[in-house]
Amino acid sequence: MKKIAVYPGSFDPITNGHLDIIKRASKLFDKLIVAVLYNSSKNSLFSFEERVELIREVVKDIDNVEVDSFTGLLIDYCNNKKVNAIIRGLRAVSDFEYELQMAQMNRQLNQDIETVILTTSTRYSFISSSLIKEVAKYKGDILELVPNNVSKEVYKKLHGGD
Amino acid sequence: MKKIAVYPGSFDPITNGHLDIIKRASKLFDKLIVAVLYNSSKNSLFSFEERVELIREVVKDIDNVEVDSFTGLLIDYCNNKKVNAIIRGLRAVSDFEYELQMAQMNRQLNQDIETVILTTSTRYSFISSSLIKEVAKYKGDILELVPNNVSKEVYKKLHGGD
Amino acid sequence: MKKIAVYPGSFDPITNGHLDIIKRASKLFDKLIVAVLYNSSKNSLFSFEERVELIREVVKDIDNVEVDSFTGLLIDYCNNKKVNAIIRGLRAVSDFEYELQMAQMNRQLNQDIETVILTTSTRYSFISSSLIKEVAKYKGDILELVPNNVSKEVYKKLHGGD
Amino acid sequence: MKKIAVYPGSFDPITNGHLDIIKRASKLFDKLIVAVLYNSSKNSLFSFEERVELIREVVKDIDNVEVDSFTGLLIDYCNNKKVNAIIRGLRAVSDFEYELQMAQMNRQLNQDIETVILTTSTRYSFISSSLIKEVAKYKGDILELVPNNVSKEVYKKLHGGD
Amino acid sequence: MKKIAVYPGSFDPITNGHLDIIKRASKLFDKLIVAVLYNSSKNSLFSFEERVELIREVVKDIDNVEVDSFTGLLIDYCNNKKVNAIIRGLRAVSDFEYELQMAQMNRQLNQDIETVILTTSTRYSFISSSLIKEVAKYKGDILELVPNNVSKEVYKKLHGGD
Amino acid sequence: MKKIAVYPGSFDPITNGHLDIIKRASKLFDKLIVAVLYNSSKNSLFSFEERVELIREVVKDIDNVEVDSFTGLLIDYCNNKKVNAIIRGLRAVSDFEYELQMAQMNRQLNQDIETVILTTSTRYSFISSSLIKEVAKYKGDILELVPNNVSKEVYKKLHGGD
Repeated sequence: MKKIAVYPGSFDPITNGHLDIIKRASKLFDKLIVAVLYNSSKNSLFSFEERVELIREVVKDIDNVEVDSFTGLLIDYCNNKKVNAIIRGLRAVSDFEYELQMAQMNRQLNQDIETVILTTSTRYSFISSSLIKEVAKYKGDILELVPNNVSKEVYKKLHGGD
Repeated sequence: MKKIAVYPGSFDPITNGHLDIIKRASKLFDKLIVAVLYNSSKNSLFSFEERVELIREVVKDIDNVEVDSFTGLLIDYCNNKKVNAIIRGLRAVSDFEYELQMAQMNRQLNQDIETVILTTSTRYSFISSSLIKEVAKYKGDILELVPNNVSKEVYKKLHGGD
Repeated sequence: MKKIAVYPGSFDPITNGHLDIIKRASKLFDKLIVAVLYNSSKNSLFSFEERVELIREVVKDIDNVEVDSFTGLLIDYCNNKKVNAIIRGLRAVSDFEYELQMAQMNRQLNQDIETVILTTSTRYSFISSSLIKEVAKYKGDILELVPNNVSKEVYKKLHGGD
Repeated sequence: MKKIAVYPGSFDPITNGHLDIIKRASKLFDKLIVAVLYNSSKNSLFSFEERVELIREVVKDIDNVEVDSFTGLLIDYCNNKKVNAIIRGLRAVSDFEYELQMAQMNRQLNQDIETVILTTSTRYSFISSSLIKEVAKYKGDILELVPNNVSKEVYKKLHGGD
Repeated sequence: MKKIAVYPGSFDPITNGHLDIIKRASKLFDKLIVAVLYNSSKNSLFSFEERVELIREVVKDIDNVEVDSFTGLLIDYCNNKKVNAIIRGLRAVSDFEYELQMAQMNRQLNQDIETVILTTSTRYSFISSSLIKEVAKYKGDILELVPNNVSKEVYKKLHGGD
Repeated sequence: MKKIAVYPGSFDPITNGHLDIIKRASKLFDKLIVAVLYNSSKNSLFSFEERVELIREVVKDIDNVEVDSFTGLLIDYCNNKKVNAIIRGLRAVSDFEYELQMAQMNRQLNQDIETVILTTSTRYSFISSSLIKEVAKYKGDILELVPNNVSKEVYKKLHGGD
């Protein structure tokens, strides 16, 4: 039977750290769905549609990766998509505790869906979407931190022009 | 292509926490190898062969699980067996840092083998092989902490009789 | 001399994790006061009075437990009530550091009031009031996570009807 | 009903950090038993009897504190002594995880005995018995780190004379 | 060549914990710049100018300490000022991970500027600007937690009068 | 006045992670002493003299770095050498707590000597002397983990030949 995994997140925007996890998870499962959380209330730099679009461009050459979106409980989305595993990328110990709590709650809600943690490569361990936006806001260099198309769009959003 | 995972450890002896990880990992991969580390120097309660045998009895009804043993570097063993992923069960934050260090070293040695962390079920989060031996040494009750055959053998080792 | 302990919190709403701490702390001290923090600015699902009322129903059969409320500094409240100990329930390491800082500040303000940490039972370790509201918002099942009366009231608040 | 707590440890030797916990725990419970673990295999500076004796001198003016010793499982000792709570002093996060694991194992073995964590005063947070022995070995000053009688005995053990 | 360090922060207001770090860092470097972050969006008790002024009074007797302010990326400010090191005071493990992430991001942006972590003295380890404001809001005693002039100004801000 | 720092350790053997810290610390202080701890009891791969010699070769081109050795309390050594700061390299949170405890003990023993923590570069964060010896023992590749001369000597020690 085919094994399906989902990699959920806000991806505002997708970083090289996210991309690293996507590439590695796509080798472990038959299909990987990158699922962007639709969140109306949160202040985001990119609209929901833009975030999905940026990821699509970035992963277009990886055969078994799909980009999708969801709202509501992740575990309900996983149920509908017959997902076997939720992928989480961990950078640090403080991330770990939150992930542990979420994994345990999700297991309480549905025992058949597993949470799988991949450790972020050391060279991406300090990257987060919010830190990237902070650096770019003051025109710092983010070229090594995000895919090329993302870097361009972040600067356009923050500093205009095209 | 078939995905193969390995779950390495000392398993002296296998606990219900280990068994929980084995059951869950076996659903995520096409084949799971439980690999007992052969370690001549370490003081163990059970001999290497006994540890392998105890695991074999415990997992005999899970179709895609094999029990094997290895010596030397785990990453060399994985290479030989064409393993895609190393499974680690995490109970706590302090485990996490050690696992992170090992995962990064293994990636340095071979980029193609992924470390996958599963979070231990809360009900098994306090169980370790050494704690079980400590409890059994003073005739404490370990029936809910290890598989039945293991409980019997631990008591026989520590307190004799049969 | 009678020993009095206080268990402070927002309790929006009380969970099975809170109830577990209340039951256990009530056996250690002659009197336990569950003290709801009155906090005008914070967005809460239940009003201050509703939160007090929900706890009253839940603890009504435990003889030495009182429900009260406070505003201002916890340490001043403890002083007035001649409290010996502040009870805190800990789920995780990240909780611990915040609690340690609060305990040290409270000791600086009043040396005679002790902070006592109880560890949450593993089966409740992933439960938090905010996570429960998130699950219930999308009609997930919270029956095993909160007392029965609370489950009913959370759904009524979030999804109306009666 | 009287509430009894036990404060277990190796106490090789008792430090000002231990004494701080003893003083504070003795105010929370009707009786506090300081219980020295008899451990034949571990290398200790002081003999089992010396460690008990040093504590007796240090706590002789605190009315509701007894000094005792135990071997085997702590939980069995607690059972026999009708203890309500096990006291643990925590200095740091890494201590916490070990304590959490022990607390959960002890609850598995006996649900009626509670583990209670007190946070070490900041001024004693860096003190451990082993660090004190290391400092004293090279004739560093330990006068502010242990009770006076202990300081004298540590130097006598390590550097002879009287 | 002269070594210059910068100690950045919000300092709303400066505490005895900050002052402890300033005194110790000023002994390690030829010049120390205390740099107040100008942050228009954040709710602060003291205005930007007031925070700078309070620090100036507090450090006026330490010869090699300057007080300055900055906006934008810290690393750009460091570049302009030819700073060798960024000073960070650490109280706890959870602080550490954030600092590690920031240090790694800053090194990515400029390899020549080092992040140097000093550990907070135990007696100040529980002090934070926000906790001090919380205590003072309810007229708790903050005299041992902040310099004298700061204590007076915090009370004036929160409770008026002079 | 000249600022002197000491970087203490076992260095059995020196790694690229150690070398990274040495290079960075040497830019912050006027003189840096790499101080090898003489430890008779510990099992080491390289003799005390060999460890000193390996470091000397590795740092011979950095002008302000000296290699020395010490026995006894580090703080006594620092006193004799009129050291201003002890340098520590941190890889992970669990390291941090031990370092915090040591820093506080050293401050208790001598207030004038500061502990300064540098964060290890991400690319070296998983490297430790013991892990390198483990990898080399089974003929794994350590060329990117230690300086060239060290790699050669480790293999010679473990697998003979020259």
